[in-house]
This record gives sequence, C-alpha cells and structure tokens, in this order.
Amino acid sequence: MAGELNDKTPRTERGRRTLRKLLDAAATEFAERGFHEASISGITRSAGVALGTFYTYFDSKDAIFRALVSDMSAGVGKAAREALDPSMGALEVERVALRAFLEFASEHKEIYRIIDEAEFVDPESYRAHYETIGARIEERLKKGAESEEFLPGLGTPEAWALMGMNVFLGLRYVIWAREGDPDFQEIARRANAMLANGIGGSAE
Amino acid sequence: MAGELNDKTPRTERGRRTLRKLLDAAATEFAERGFHEASISGITRSAGVALGTFYTYFDSKDAIFRALVSDMSAGVGKAAREALDPSMGALEVERVALRAFLEFASEHKEIYRIIDEAEFVDPESYRAHYETIGARIEERLKKGAESEEFLPGLGTPEAWALMGMNVFLGLRYVIWAREGDPDFQEIARRANAMLANGIGGSAE
Repeated sequence: MAGELNDKTPRTERGRRTLRKLLDAAATEFAERGFHEASISGITRSAGVALGTFYTYFDSKDAIFRALVSDMSAGVGKAAREALDPSMGALEVERVALRAFLEFASEHKEIYRIIDEAEFVDPESYRAHYETIGARIEERLKKGAESEEFLPGLGTPEAWALMGMNVFLGLRYVIWAREGDPDFQEIARRANAMLANGIGGSAE
Repeated sequence: MAGELNDKTPRTERGRRTLRKLLDAAATEFAERGFHEASISGITRSAGVALGTFYTYFDSKDAIFRALVSDMSAGVGKAAREALDPSMGALEVERVALRAFLEFASEHKEIYRIIDEAEFVDPESYRAHYETIGARIEERLKKGAESEEFLPGLGTPEAWALMGMNVFLGLRYVIWAREGDPDFQEIARRANAMLANGIGGSAE
C-alpha cells in the first residue's frame, strides 16, 4: 500500500511524484467511472505515464484502489493536522478539524464516492478508514477529558457519534451543497456549539 | 414505488402480503449478492411466488430496488414512531428514537448495505432516504425548540449532525458490533447525554 514500505514503495523524489500522479488520476478515474468500469489504462493515460510504469507501483486495479482509500484516510488526517496548532483548546481543535475536513472534502469531492464504493469493492479498507479516523477522534476526546476541557469518561461511542456528525455535515454541505447554505466556518461553528453545550435548552 | 399509489399498488390484503414477501426476499437477495448479481428469479424463488407474479408488482429489478429503499426509509420511520409516545419530552424522543433505530437495524442488518449500494445503483433514492430522515429529525428539533426543551435556532445543520451520529453509532454498534460493547440502551443513553449537554466540561 502507498505509504507503507514494501518493494513497490518509491525511493526517489521522482518516483514519489509519479506515485502521486497515479493516485490523483486514480481518484478521478474511480470517481467518474466507478471501480468496475475504471481501467488501469484510463488511469495511466490521465496521469500521463506509460502503462508499464503502473506496474512499478501497483500489481493491479485492486491494489491502487486500496492504496487510494488509504491515501485518502491519510489526506483527511493531514488536512486536520495542518490546520491545528498546539495552542488550541480541545474544543477549538474539533471546530478547526471539522472545518479542515469540509475544505478537504470540497477540494476532493470524489472522496465520498470512493470511500463509499470501498464498502463493496474492498470492505477491509472501508472499515479501516473509519476505524482509523474514529480512533484518532477518540484520542482527541480523551486528551480533552484529561485537560478537563471535556467531560470525563468519553470514549468510543462519543468518538463515533462525532465522526458521524462530521461525515454527514460533509455529505449535506459539500456533496449536496445548495445555494444559500451557511459557509463551512458557520457549519463548523454550529456543530461545535452543539458539541460544547448540547442542544438542551432551559429545561435541561 | 411501494407505498405510493400507482397501477401496481395492491388493493387486497393478499396482494399486500405478496408485496411484503417480495420486498423481504429482495432485501435478502440484494444484501447477499449485491444489486448487479441479484436476480428477479432469485427474489421470487426465495419469496415463494411465481416469476410472473413479480411483474404484477414491479416492472424491473431497478423498480423493486427503488421500492425497497423507500420501504426501508419508511421502516426506520415506523420503528421510531412506534417506540414514541406523546407524553415524552423532546430529548427523550431522541433517545428512544435512536434506540429504536439500533434495534431496527439489528433486525434488518441488510439496511446499511442496501442503502449504501443505492448511492451507486439509484442515487436519487439514496439522497431521498437521507433527505427524508433529515427533514423528520429537523422537525423534531424545531418542535423541541418551540417547547423550550431545546435551544432556539436549531435547523438543518443540527439535524444532519444528529442523523450522522445515529447512522455511525449503528455502523459501529450494529454492523461492526464487538463482544463487550455497551448495549443499545447504554449507547442511546450516552448519545443522548452528549446531545443534551454536549461534552464540554468545567472549562465551558
């Protein structure tokens, strides 16, 4: 898999650039045609590399699809990390991470279709994608609980609930965006307010 | 579509029973084989009805798939409604609705696979499924805001966030359930606490 060391991992800068081109081309090809209709020659053509070069990096269409899902998981994580800085409080981290995710998804709209198709094409990658992100969120919640910015006792259910919020806000406001929708900053602010204080009013 | 009046809507109790058998058999067939591998003859065989009978109800495999997605949306709604009663407060409604959804999904584990495959097979049904549920949740949130049990100003972002929580809790605790997981009542309780008061601790 891309990002993991195996005999196909590129060792030169040029190799890494070619791998990147192949993954980006694969994202477009899989998103536009779906896994079954997508072809390796379509990927290499749009990447502008020779067909034979493909096999320097991947054994099969399955292999590049798997690498792409893993690359997209990593991309989601990287987008969040780059937006965060150590001075932020735990709650701010969640707001900024959601906003970064919405922006990432907006620049990589194909991510929903590809991750969702993984459920059928490569169920293990599909599950790994959410397990990875869920674990990352759970770790942040625990850290926030330790610093007493969050309530004690947060764990897997809260992490998956939060992940679901973020995924569905992306579905609605990125993939199915409509004219007049609030912008990403406002969506992240509202989700964060919900996370901070809940929606219980005076009766609570 | 099942549930809508057209020339294929059964008018007798016996017709409705046959339709139900076909939809249940379709759920199993599509979940086990996927849309493309599934066949009308597989559906009628497992429903125990003649192949010709199928066409009294549906024009095609696409048509029964579409009807099935719509039937599952209705099933989710019905499960929630049956668990609710008018004496419940707005917050309790959300707790009970989530628990009912987890139980429904647990008895109809195929729902995730079928709804998710609709994204590829019948994108309009896929979107309609979530738009319908999102609108239902949004209405409940507005009602809760009116009765002042919820904060004012709740709308589409909060409804989709809540829908995402519920869908992902089902994914993790129904579809990917593990030994030692909390039970549905406890999951619904924790999600409801998060909804009521958020996760902000003393620093909030």
